[in-house]
Amino acid sequence: MSSPPSERATLLVSCPDRRGIVAALAQLLYGYGANILDSDQHTDSVAAQFFQRLHFDLSELQTDRGTLERAIFEVAERFGMRFELRYQNEVKRVAIFVSKYDHCLYDLLLRHQSGELSCELPLIVSNHPDLERVARQFDVDFALVPMSKEDKSEGEQRQLELLRARRVDLLVLARYMQILSESFISSFAGKIINIHHSFLPAFVGGKPYHQAYERGVKLIGATAHYASAVLDEGPIIEQDVVRSSHRDSVADLVRKGRDLEKVVLARAVRLHLEDRVLVYGNKTVVFE
Amino acid sequence: MSSPPSERATLLVSCPDRRGIVAALAQLLYGYGANILDSDQHTDSVAAQFFQRLHFDLSELQTDRGTLERAIFEVAERFGMRFELRYQNEVKRVAIFVSKYDHCLYDLLLRHQSGELSCELPLIVSNHPDLERVARQFDVDFALVPMSKEDKSEGEQRQLELLRARRVDLLVLARYMQILSESFISSFAGKIINIHHSFLPAFVGGKPYHQAYERGVKLIGATAHYASAVLDEGPIIEQDVVRSSHRDSVADLVRKGRDLEKVVLARAVRLHLEDRVLVYGNKTVVFE
Amino acid sequence: MSSPPSERATLLVSCPDRRGIVAALAQLLYGYGANILDSDQHTDSVAAQFFQRLHFDLSELQTDRGTLERAIFEVAERFGMRFELRYQNEVKRVAIFVSKYDHCLYDLLLRHQSGELSCELPLIVSNHPDLERVARQFDVDFALVPMSKEDKSEGEQRQLELLRARRVDLLVLARYMQILSESFISSFAGKIINIHHSFLPAFVGGKPYHQAYERGVKLIGATAHYASAVLDEGPIIEQDVVRSSHRDSVADLVRKGRDLEKVVLARAVRLHLEDRVLVYGNKTVVFE
Amino acid sequence: MSSPPSERATLLVSCPDRRGIVAALAQLLYGYGANILDSDQHTDSVAAQFFQRLHFDLSELQTDRGTLERAIFEVAERFGMRFELRYQNEVKRVAIFVSKYDHCLYDLLLRHQSGELSCELPLIVSNHPDLERVARQFDVDFALVPMSKEDKSEGEQRQLELLRARRVDLLVLARYMQILSESFISSFAGKIINIHHSFLPAFVGGKPYHQAYERGVKLIGATAHYASAVLDEGPIIEQDVVRSSHRDSVADLVRKGRDLEKVVLARAVRLHLEDRVLVYGNKTVVFE
Repeated sequence: MSSPPSERATLLVSCPDRRGIVAALAQLLYGYGANILDSDQHTDSVAAQFFQRLHFDLSELQTDRGTLERAIFEVAERFGMRFELRYQNEVKRVAIFVSKYDHCLYDLLLRHQSGELSCELPLIVSNHPDLERVARQFDVDFALVPMSKEDKSEGEQRQLELLRARRVDLLVLARYMQILSESFISSFAGKIINIHHSFLPAFVGGKPYHQAYERGVKLIGATAHYASAVLDEGPIIEQDVVRSSHRDSVADLVRKGRDLEKVVLARAVRLHLEDRVLVYGNKTVVFE
Repeated sequence: MSSPPSERATLLVSCPDRRGIVAALAQLLYGYGANILDSDQHTDSVAAQFFQRLHFDLSELQTDRGTLERAIFEVAERFGMRFELRYQNEVKRVAIFVSKYDHCLYDLLLRHQSGELSCELPLIVSNHPDLERVARQFDVDFALVPMSKEDKSEGEQRQLELLRARRVDLLVLARYMQILSESFISSFAGKIINIHHSFLPAFVGGKPYHQAYERGVKLIGATAHYASAVLDEGPIIEQDVVRSSHRDSVADLVRKGRDLEKVVLARAVRLHLEDRVLVYGNKTVVFE
Repeated sequence: MSSPPSERATLLVSCPDRRGIVAALAQLLYGYGANILDSDQHTDSVAAQFFQRLHFDLSELQTDRGTLERAIFEVAERFGMRFELRYQNEVKRVAIFVSKYDHCLYDLLLRHQSGELSCELPLIVSNHPDLERVARQFDVDFALVPMSKEDKSEGEQRQLELLRARRVDLLVLARYMQILSESFISSFAGKIINIHHSFLPAFVGGKPYHQAYERGVKLIGATAHYASAVLDEGPIIEQDVVRSSHRDSVADLVRKGRDLEKVVLARAVRLHLEDRVLVYGNKTVVFE
Repeated sequence: MSSPPSERATLLVSCPDRRGIVAALAQLLYGYGANILDSDQHTDSVAAQFFQRLHFDLSELQTDRGTLERAIFEVAERFGMRFELRYQNEVKRVAIFVSKYDHCLYDLLLRHQSGELSCELPLIVSNHPDLERVARQFDVDFALVPMSKEDKSEGEQRQLELLRARRVDLLVLARYMQILSESFISSFAGKIINIHHSFLPAFVGGKPYHQAYERGVKLIGATAHYASAVLDEGPIIEQDVVRSSHRDSVADLVRKGRDLEKVVLARAVRLHLEDRVLVYGNKTVVFE
């Protein structure tokens, strides 16, 4: 039971709800000697969709991984499943996009350094040179990709090349202050996590703390979501709030918000890295 | 120092920020033998507005209340203050408007019964007969005022008569499912507290839990605010949230929301009854 | 897929961790035509214990319930399982014990009335007559069982008779101010939920708000737990806290605490009624 | 009204409750041309103690600071006050004690770097060499002071010398894993803030996350408090909690706790640096 984590895998599955899915997958894994360590399932009875996350141990697998994969593929065909199978020894590679704010960047770097985020961090990309010093403090490569106001396509082309060259699996927008083009987003669909500094759908756009101040809300929030073609409208992964009051200036909201943004973004990244998030429609199933 | 609460008063003050306000009021009260038990102040440096709440003991007042009031009036003139002076022995009279949901109504009635809300509750008004049984359980008068879809003016006229006849100081909309007319609201400006079942400004309008479900938010909220001419846009007094997940159906959100609505509305009513809320522009200063 | 809830059942299982448990149960249920709607599992790797909750639909069961039960029993034998199987049409019967505080009692009665707690409430028992009026408001039988300070055994004997006569499945101590004897608790082991008005293990005993006030804590808490032989030491089901400050007198803490106690107790009762709680050692697994 | 912060001062006052204190202080400041920007007061009616924080602007002071101080001293004598007067241009000097955990250290350094903590950070002291690399990343002096298990007096002597040489006003124990002697604490009475990784008074001592795991609590906490002679019993400044569940191993609690410790410690340090905390008995008044 105490095999090393590198001998583990996670299967994420979604399909139209039908009888027998749970039994079919459990039987399949058991039959090949894969031991289920953790499983979680959800049925959206409105959408009639089934979702499951299976985390299992391969250390006593009685076949090779190719055979296991083919067997899963066959079950998936039978039930009309979309699935993702991830081996834990294939560590995800994450790039961080930043502009000038350093708090989310520092937070991710420190969590990575402490072993809290199981991923590699091969690259930081920015449209400003300011945070190169932070990248250097933590010995991560830093690429300056300036973005022209008139034409972003050149900059985005350069970014995509960098991401491909480093084989990046996940792109984290850690208060990156540029709007990505639809084509860029579709190149990385479902692989871009953004942190928005409000409790979406309240206060979309660039100045949420100012809007919150004007409206006189008694809580401010932060939202981590997958980037989608429509700004601030992608599937939400995680949200949280903190209390504010009439005493808080915009600067106070910004300060309080920093702590919130860090924690909410880090939770979302962690959930994604552990293959706990399934997207359907514009919503997420998060198996915590 | 241990005078009965009935010998106490509260002064709420707002004015353009100037030097000497704090000293002038403290000196005035001290000079007449009124002992300050609690004071709280706030300066909005953006709007250059000063706000203060003074709670004081009158048991050793060396003059009559009329003289004290005139003195306050003079200071107010000098500083261009708006002020409200309330004697604690003048208990506020509260009417509750409901439709069919009973949770906020029960909550307010029980808090009143337990002594948590220092007010009188002379009247419950509803456009449906359903909750008369609750009114009777707690021995409060119940008035059925049906609202016609075509013309609400007659119903509102009847409501205003009832409120005046009972000398109502505060009107609490405890999930009252009718939109009040501008003229009704202006007749009770700053005296109507509504509970909205979302974290405003997200999800305005009539079906916030459905909207929250559709958007896939990870927290749901509730907002207590003063009613204003524009629906769901009045000054916010109190807000709170509770965690939700993909497992929550709309019915689950409604259930979780009930607890939130009760607590948020009760806090707002309590803050108002204790003269802790000052409105300016579309915002509030809440002296907790 | 849209069978009535009365056609559903829940299986709670715990056993030493072994391979194949998940597959065996999934296969068993599938084989008899029981469709798994929801399943959740947990492995405590320190204690090497496996826990699972399976919620399934029996509307297309291809056998009778007796056969299903025998099949489950056989699997349970094979894996050394403890299990509980509950049919949703067998509604649990709950008794509430109170003394003089009415807030938790009202809260449970209102949640029951609104359909939030799926149980029957045949009985309220108290050592004081005060809350008979509340029982009458909600048309629930009320039994006065005075407790002598010298000898509680007679009173407890009377209580047990009442509980048996009404076939009570769950006993909720809703701020019942008497200590139950070990023998009483063992007669209802795992079926008594108590609300303690502190964040246990801080402030055990009878005056937690006073202790919290003396210690100057910045949060106060409430804990719902199964009653055990040692006072305030049973397995914790649910806890929550609320912020306090130097401004809070003991009376303020009591008032704030009431809201907390109600919500925490109600959540625990709901979790128990939905068969979401498994006890092991002095801890709980709560499948939310 | 928009004088620079360097022209501001804060007066913290406590004394037996009497009439006229508020007026006397307001009059004094107004008389000398000091403009009150913010004031907050509290009366503990049980202890009959009065507390006030006055934050004021000196840019139009009509006298010198010496005269102002003498006037305050005279009022203080009259009312039996203890008081502290701080000029905002006299920035506090903070030393951080650490052992091997780096999360609180990083957090404080980053907040300081971002301007969130208005203080100087001249020194980090540790009994282990591990975190010297962090000190170097942020260009802060690092002193290694090994502590012998048999006799800590030599090490503490060295620490006190360092603190005096650097004129340290506040000592922050950022997960410093040594118990300070009574004599060390009394040398810095009221100037040492410690972070304890539990919701005190639950789980005192060295292994709170293990204790929390064993007890099966559903929330874990952190407490920032002034160090006192009795371990983990000093006056509490700030506390917070985060939800835990049966899924959390001790390692998970440690990870979740890190975020909590950072935030709670940072809030307490910030409150202290802004002269918002008054200690009386074993409790604090925190003027937020």
